[in-house]
Amino acid sequence: MKGFQIFNRASTAITNRATPSKLLIVLTFGAAGGAFLAISDDSPFRSLTAGESGNDGGKKKKLVVLGTGWGGTTFLKNLKTSAYDVHVVSPHNYFTFTPLLPSVTNGTVEARSIVEPIRNIVRNKPYNVEFKEAECYRIDPVNKKVYCRSIQNLGHGENEFALDYDVLVIAMGARVNTFNTPGVEEHAHFLKEVDDAQKLRRSIIDCYERASLPTISDEEKKRIMHFVVVGGGPTGVEYAAELHDFASQDLASLYPSLKDYLKITLLEAGNHILPMFHKKVTDFANEKFQKDQIDVKTGSMVVKVSDKDISTKNRATGQIEAIPYGVVLWSTGIATRPVIAEFMEKIGQAGKRVMATDEWLKVQGCDDVYALGDCASIDVGDFKEFVKDIYERYPQVRKYLEKNKLKNFESLLRNAQGDSQKKIDIEALKKALSEVDSQVSFLPPTAQVASQQGKYLAACFNKAGRCEMKPEGPFRFQESGGRYPFHPFSYKHSGQFAPLGGEQAAVQFPGDWVSIGHASQGLWYTVYASKLVTWRTKVLVVSDWFRRFTFGRDSSHL
Amino acid sequence: MKGFQIFNRASTAITNRATPSKLLIVLTFGAAGGAFLAISDDSPFRSLTAGESGNDGGKKKKLVVLGTGWGGTTFLKNLKTSAYDVHVVSPHNYFTFTPLLPSVTNGTVEARSIVEPIRNIVRNKPYNVEFKEAECYRIDPVNKKVYCRSIQNLGHGENEFALDYDVLVIAMGARVNTFNTPGVEEHAHFLKEVDDAQKLRRSIIDCYERASLPTISDEEKKRIMHFVVVGGGPTGVEYAAELHDFASQDLASLYPSLKDYLKITLLEAGNHILPMFHKKVTDFANEKFQKDQIDVKTGSMVVKVSDKDISTKNRATGQIEAIPYGVVLWSTGIATRPVIAEFMEKIGQAGKRVMATDEWLKVQGCDDVYALGDCASIDVGDFKEFVKDIYERYPQVRKYLEKNKLKNFESLLRNAQGDSQKKIDIEALKKALSEVDSQVSFLPPTAQVASQQGKYLAACFNKAGRCEMKPEGPFRFQESGGRYPFHPFSYKHSGQFAPLGGEQAAVQFPGDWVSIGHASQGLWYTVYASKLVTWRTKVLVVSDWFRRFTFGRDSSHL
Repeated sequence: MKGFQIFNRASTAITNRATPSKLLIVLTFGAAGGAFLAISDDSPFRSLTAGESGNDGGKKKKLVVLGTGWGGTTFLKNLKTSAYDVHVVSPHNYFTFTPLLPSVTNGTVEARSIVEPIRNIVRNKPYNVEFKEAECYRIDPVNKKVYCRSIQNLGHGENEFALDYDVLVIAMGARVNTFNTPGVEEHAHFLKEVDDAQKLRRSIIDCYERASLPTISDEEKKRIMHFVVVGGGPTGVEYAAELHDFASQDLASLYPSLKDYLKITLLEAGNHILPMFHKKVTDFANEKFQKDQIDVKTGSMVVKVSDKDISTKNRATGQIEAIPYGVVLWSTGIATRPVIAEFMEKIGQAGKRVMATDEWLKVQGCDDVYALGDCASIDVGDFKEFVKDIYERYPQVRKYLEKNKLKNFESLLRNAQGDSQKKIDIEALKKALSEVDSQVSFLPPTAQVASQQGKYLAACFNKAGRCEMKPEGPFRFQESGGRYPFHPFSYKHSGQFAPLGGEQAAVQFPGDWVSIGHASQGLWYTVYASKLVTWRTKVLVVSDWFRRFTFGRDSSHL
Repeated sequence: MKGFQIFNRASTAITNRATPSKLLIVLTFGAAGGAFLAISDDSPFRSLTAGESGNDGGKKKKLVVLGTGWGGTTFLKNLKTSAYDVHVVSPHNYFTFTPLLPSVTNGTVEARSIVEPIRNIVRNKPYNVEFKEAECYRIDPVNKKVYCRSIQNLGHGENEFALDYDVLVIAMGARVNTFNTPGVEEHAHFLKEVDDAQKLRRSIIDCYERASLPTISDEEKKRIMHFVVVGGGPTGVEYAAELHDFASQDLASLYPSLKDYLKITLLEAGNHILPMFHKKVTDFANEKFQKDQIDVKTGSMVVKVSDKDISTKNRATGQIEAIPYGVVLWSTGIATRPVIAEFMEKIGQAGKRVMATDEWLKVQGCDDVYALGDCASIDVGDFKEFVKDIYERYPQVRKYLEKNKLKNFESLLRNAQGDSQKKIDIEALKKALSEVDSQVSFLPPTAQVASQQGKYLAACFNKAGRCEMKPEGPFRFQESGGRYPFHPFSYKHSGQFAPLGGEQAAVQFPGDWVSIGHASQGLWYTVYASKLVTWRTKVLVVSDWFRRFTFGRDSSHL
């Protein structure tokens, strides 16, 4: 009856946690579940404890953090132990509040307002910290070394260096996924960094100024003034909306002769824009964009980008069309960075789509390495095994579910807990599980996930010493030979915004509660202002908004 | 007695003008004086009149303005006639408030806060206006054409175009004067445009980040952290002071290990820094810089700049020394742009140091072309001829001056006007005249001069039509065959600031009235806020100052 014990323990763990969102609890289970099958005597934080480090003659452990995005920065901000010498390596000496990048591209918010120097963030922390502005290009888990390269291209043997680590935290994010579409790297704009936003902004003004020259033919003007956004996710939609506002509210009066040439197109390979949102949101966005004359083309796959044309393939008809464009923004999803892919091969993860960690964010297949944010994903492979196990052992689950018409796995477990004699329908369980699985198998590559992971991992590091010294305290789940001092990572989804331009936004909260309109835009302003990482950025962004309301957006070619 | 009539008329013109500063009045005379000897029937604004343009079948005259700096922008802002189709050509689609560039380099003020799109400035003007973001590379005064090149490097015959003009206003500014010092173009930073300020800022942060890398030797750190400013004028001094504040107030706490490596050096070829200021100011600046550990080296000429060393020659000893540096700012003065030099050859000004205009800002030697700001200078050659004439004709001037101990030419003229029987000492007159001459021969290449010229020229253009139709009205100086509808340009100097860091500044008002300290810095803030070109920039800059006071300067590598 080992399986049932596991089942029971898991459901206890779940129902004991008071969380407002169903999805989250299930996710917790999804992550935690696997762990109970993969029981071992290794604590995933064994290398972190101050006790151990104390045995090394008082020498502090060397913690290397790669990356200063949402994951890395939140980790550093919340790390409150003096047990480490921390070394941070990142090509950017600042943290970027990425959700406001579309605003930067159109001058609604100033680039400098959404960044915070990482040295400022780690100032006055109890740990020693050194920052190195460099890119990690190789991780060697055998010799516990990371190899780095300065972004300044110094030459003379000054450019490259290696850092030893005792513990490594990888928070390097991901690269843009071009799906190997020819010409994208060369001709398209991306929107991942502040530089990208500034370049995109200059390119838009480039187009306006170029189209104002007397040498440009009418046809060429039409091409130059055609702005294409590829990808109907929240970033693409927000950018298209912001660009429309910038063009109609600010640029139209300054470049009156170009008003009729302007065209904005949004290309989406799937059947809907904003597929992760409720249908109400998608419908509203479609209507709003139609009113705004933003041309939304769904079922339209980009097959090639040249310097002046973007070729799309209609997924229904198979027809290929080349559309002349002035600027194209590529915003379709993310892929693994080459350095991570190479590292995955070394640790036996070659076949995986994304680097796998366990539910405590420890990278599977190597010691003392943790990974956060877009560069990794919690592996739920074991969870699927666990489910298969249940299917075989408890066929009565099917009937139970049939009778109770339980909608999802959490209710199933909660009820099962209350009355263990009830029977469960295996098909309904399967369905419930598959629903759960599709939701938990990959956490979305968002700021929310990365920052919660950073906070979680920092809390684990903070507590590690205390745990070792007082094992009866925060240690949990000590049965069955497993010694896990911490809860596994649990993601709490607080909702998602989709700004749609014209001071309107859509917001979808957990439980599919949806709100659309001006009030949601107000909420968007409030939430984003409150989420900004320091007081400085909060004040700067809010005053940028006031500046924009008062004076409009700037069209200088800067 | 023609000479005396001229003399009398000139002095009448001068004494009739109530101006607070002696220098200004003399300057007016200096400019006006030449005109009376160069009498002709041509009105310098004959091509501007609406009357004439009315004769062309109602077709408006085509006015081309080259440049959107202080001169061009003030001209466009003050032009209030519908008599022209205006075409503006400039490589920048915005106006830059250049006095705040040193603040931008250190993040005290945001780049976007000190620029204003030129289209915004000319919006709602009575004249039609078209802006072209391009660089003029040739002016053809014979066929009345300017040849322009887009800054976007378009190719396919789209890059270059020609514009006809009826009237041309050249306000292209000047280039940096490198005195042909080898290596300056390649390795030194300049501070003329917003781009320059942004690049310089990034280079400073580059150095801090590079010096923080583990591969850098101590000696190399010393080199990297050595910032050199060449030129002890107001810009160089202000930049050195601002950089010191940035380093000590903001960067020192973020890069504590680099504090001892930092060194700022100010090189000046002359004997004093701030040579255009009163000795009190120079002394104060020297003391302040000594306290701040900014190394001021006077009598030190730069002879070569390589990628890592700057070679200076001690003017007293002739000794040459190579100093390793991290960043060098070159701020030593201005020179004529190649396009202007080529144009000067065409119009017979090949030998001149700077393009010469008459006292109404009309370019000498060609019709319908006006020039403003740093790219031109009012020619006072005729004035010298005029003075020689006086020497020969009125030797009694010597005695008059001896007796009255008159200090300068204006008093001389004013008194001469009151009692024409008095005798004048020719030597004293010569001395007075030479004093005057050294002050007026070239107006300083400042924002003040250019903007006053822009305003003046716009007023002339605005009145031109009215003058033609009602000649007895604003026309002046109609005797002796000359028909000059306008006063010649008269520069009113309102004083000059030299910010010295640590919230202290020096200010020198006309009449050598000097104030130094925190109050002057307060005045600096007030004056600069009030002088900003639009309400938008005013509010932005002031709020940038508040941001800086509250949160310090940003050190992000943007």
